[in-house]
Amino acid sequence: MSWDHVWIDVNIATMDPDNSAAYGAITDAAIAVKDGKIAWLGPRKELPDFDVFDMPVYRGRGGWITPGLIDAHTHLVFAGNRANEFEMRLEGASYEDIARAGGGIISTVNACREAEEAELFDLGRQRLNALAKEGVTTVEIKSGYGLNTETEVKLLKVARELGRNHHVDVKTTFLGAHAIPPEYKHDTEAYVDLVINEMLPAVIEQNLADAADVFCENIAFNLDQTERVLTAAKTAGLEIKLHAEQLSNMGGSTMAAKLGAKSVDHIEYLDEAGVKALAESGTCATLLPGAFYFLRETKMPPIELLRQYNVPIVVASDFNPGSSPICSTLLMLNMACTLFKLTPEEALKGITVNAAKALGIEQNVGMLAQGMQADFCLWDIATPAQLAYAYGVNPCKDVVKNGVLVHQ
Amino acid sequence: MSWDHVWIDVNIATMDPDNSAAYGAITDAAIAVKDGKIAWLGPRKELPDFDVFDMPVYRGRGGWITPGLIDAHTHLVFAGNRANEFEMRLEGASYEDIARAGGGIISTVNACREAEEAELFDLGRQRLNALAKEGVTTVEIKSGYGLNTETEVKLLKVARELGRNHHVDVKTTFLGAHAIPPEYKHDTEAYVDLVINEMLPAVIEQNLADAADVFCENIAFNLDQTERVLTAAKTAGLEIKLHAEQLSNMGGSTMAAKLGAKSVDHIEYLDEAGVKALAESGTCATLLPGAFYFLRETKMPPIELLRQYNVPIVVASDFNPGSSPICSTLLMLNMACTLFKLTPEEALKGITVNAAKALGIEQNVGMLAQGMQADFCLWDIATPAQLAYAYGVNPCKDVVKNGVLVHQ
Ligand SMILES: [Zn+2]
Ligand SMILES: [Zn+2]
Repeated sequence: MSWDHVWIDVNIATMDPDNSAAYGAITDAAIAVKDGKIAWLGPRKELPDFDVFDMPVYRGRGGWITPGLIDAHTHLVFAGNRANEFEMRLEGASYEDIARAGGGIISTVNACREAEEAELFDLGRQRLNALAKEGVTTVEIKSGYGLNTETEVKLLKVARELGRNHHVDVKTTFLGAHAIPPEYKHDTEAYVDLVINEMLPAVIEQNLADAADVFCENIAFNLDQTERVLTAAKTAGLEIKLHAEQLSNMGGSTMAAKLGAKSVDHIEYLDEAGVKALAESGTCATLLPGAFYFLRETKMPPIELLRQYNVPIVVASDFNPGSSPICSTLLMLNMACTLFKLTPEEALKGITVNAAKALGIEQNVGMLAQGMQADFCLWDIATPAQLAYAYGVNPCKDVVKNGVLVHQ
Repeated sequence: MSWDHVWIDVNIATMDPDNSAAYGAITDAAIAVKDGKIAWLGPRKELPDFDVFDMPVYRGRGGWITPGLIDAHTHLVFAGNRANEFEMRLEGASYEDIARAGGGIISTVNACREAEEAELFDLGRQRLNALAKEGVTTVEIKSGYGLNTETEVKLLKVARELGRNHHVDVKTTFLGAHAIPPEYKHDTEAYVDLVINEMLPAVIEQNLADAADVFCENIAFNLDQTERVLTAAKTAGLEIKLHAEQLSNMGGSTMAAKLGAKSVDHIEYLDEAGVKALAESGTCATLLPGAFYFLRETKMPPIELLRQYNVPIVVASDFNPGSSPICSTLLMLNMACTLFKLTPEEALKGITVNAAKALGIEQNVGMLAQGMQADFCLWDIATPAQLAYAYGVNPCKDVVKNGVLVHQ
C-alpha cells in the first residue's frame, strides 16, 4: 500500500448513512489518505499491511475523527459592525431612534459600499481563521450587503478570493435580493428588475456565484418577486436557496422547493404543507440557531415534522452583523441542541453530511468514505456528543484539508 | 519618569465609577506601568515627559484597554463530562433512565473522587488557558464535586495549585454543601455536620479557601442548614456567598445578605424584599446567563429591581459540567445582554469592577486607576460595546497581568 499518510488510534464518526451505527461510527479505526482523497477507512484490524517507514503515521490518541465541518449559511464578508445599535436598543432606544442614528442593515450596506476589497478580504480572512480553528473546512458566503451591482460584485469577488487564498473552501451565493435599498423603497419592482437584469448577468459573466438566494418576507421581497429572481437564477445555471418563513408563513419554502431549491433557511414559521413540499423535492431545511438566539425568537421551527418527513436538517451560523453576530459553527451545534432540542447526532449531521447536500457538494465532502475528499478533523473527545455538549475549550486538534495536514 | 512600560494610541475603558463617562472611558489615552501597578493613566496629551529609549512603548493601534476580565463564579476543576446524559435527554430519556445510567451530579462526583490531582490540574489548566485567551486575569473556582473531605480538599488544592502555576489569579471557594451525596441522602443533617465539623476545619487548616458557598434550594440544602454552614464559615474567617433563588424563592439571599455575604448567585426567583436586603448589606447579585441558557430557563432575574436599588450586578460563567458547560467569560457578556437585556456597559461592569467586589478584591483589580494592580487587556475593537455584541473572532490582542505583558 502506498499512501500519503495514515491515521491510527482513532475512532471515526463517518456520518455515512450507509453505516447504521450512531454517527456512522467505527471505533478503533484507521484512515489512509492518498492524492487528496480517502484511500482506505475501516476498523484498524482490517487495515491492509503497509510499510510504516514509507509514510507518516499519525496517532490520534483515542480521539475522534469527523468530516471537516461545513457552515452552509453565512454572510461573513461585510464591513462595519452594529455594536452601536445593539447598545442603543439595550439602552432603550426605539427603532426610529436607531434608524435616525443610521442603524439597521443600511449601515452595513453603507460600510460595504465604502470598503476597499482589501479591507473586506482582511475582515473575511479573520473570520475564516476563527472558523477554521474549530474544524470548519467549507463555508458558504453570501453577498447581500451591496444592493447595487458594483458592491454585490465586489463582495462576491472577495468571497471567491478568500476561497482561493485559504485552506477553507468557499461556496458563494448571490443575495442581491437581501433587502430593498433606500433608493428603491418606493419602487421595489424596479429593484427586482435591477437584480435580474443587471446584477445577475454581471455575477454570471464573471462566474462569481455558485447559487442565488432571496429574502422572502413581508419586510423584504414578496412571493412573486422571489419567484422571479429564483427562476432567473436557475435559468442562468445557479443553484437556488431561500431565506424563508423566518417571521411569517409566506409560502416561500413551497415555491422554492418546487423550483428545486437546495435549501430553505430559517423556517421557524414553516407549516406541514411546506415540510411536505421540501420532502418531495429533496430540499434541505437549514436551521439557524444563532439568529433565533440573538433575536430572542420563541417560535420554534417544526423539528418534529422535519423528522417525520425525513427532510435533511442543516445547522448553520448565519453569521452576519445584524441578527447573528456569532462567528462560531461549533457553538451552533450546542445551540441547535439547547434551543431546538436536536440530538447531538442530528446537529452534527447538520454541519457535515446534510450541510454538504445543501451546497450540492455531497459527492465530495460531508462524510467519510473511500473515494471522498480527505477533509477531516481530529478531536480530543471521548464521544461525538461532546462536540455538541460543551463549548469553550477547543477540542479541535488537527485538520486535514484536501489530504493535507493543516496544523492547528 | 521611570516606568516599566507605557501604552499609547489606545482608548481606556477604566470602569472607574469616579469617571462619569460611559465605561469610565478616556479616549486617546496612555497608561504607564511600574512594579506591577498602574503608575500613570490619563489622556495622552497629559502624559508626563519620559525617555522613549528608556522603556518599551507599546502602540495599541486605536484599540481599547479594559481591566483584565474577572470570572467570579466557576466550578472549573472537575473530571469527566456529562455529554452522555446531554445526549440521552435529547434522545428522549427520562430522568430515571439517566439516573440509572449513572448520570447527574453524582457522575461528576464519582469522576472527581477517582481522579488524580495531576489529571484535575491538567483539565483545569486547559480551561484556564481558554479563559486567559479571551482576556480573563482572575477566576474564582469552587469545590463541590467531592462531597467528602478527602475529595473536597483535593479539588481545592488543585485550584490553589492552578493559581500558583498560571498567570491567571485564582480565588477559591469551598462548596462542600453543593449537593447531598448518596451516602447521606437519608440523613442530610449528618452531612451538614460533616461539612461543618470535618471538611471546613480541614480546609481552614490548610488555607485552601478564600470563601465558602452553599447551594440553598429545595433540591439541596434548606435555609437552616445553609445558615449553619455560612455562619460556621464566617466564624472561621472565610468570606461567604450563596447559590440562591435559582429554582424557587427560599429566602436564602436575604439570610446571606444579613450575614454579610459578598454575593448571591443565580437569583432568578429573587423578590423585592430580597433585592432590598442585598442593597442594605452591599451584597452583589451574580447573574449566570450560561446556566439560564443551558437549562432553557424562562424566569428572568429581577434586573429592573437590581438597578432600582443599585445592587452591583455581576456576570459570571458558572462553568460546570451539569448546567453550564460553556467555558467562555466573553460569551457570557453577549448572553447577559441578549438573554437578560443588560446594557453592554452593565455586562462589562459585571465581569470587571463588580466581579472584583464579589470576590472582595476591588481594592486591587477590576478597574483601572493609578495605584491599582496592572491587570489589563488590549482589544481590537472600535467601541467597548463590541465586546458584548459580537462573538467568535477573538478581539483580545494583549494581556498585561501584574504588570507583565503576557503575549496572546
Ligand atoms: Zn442569512
Ligand atoms: Zn454555580
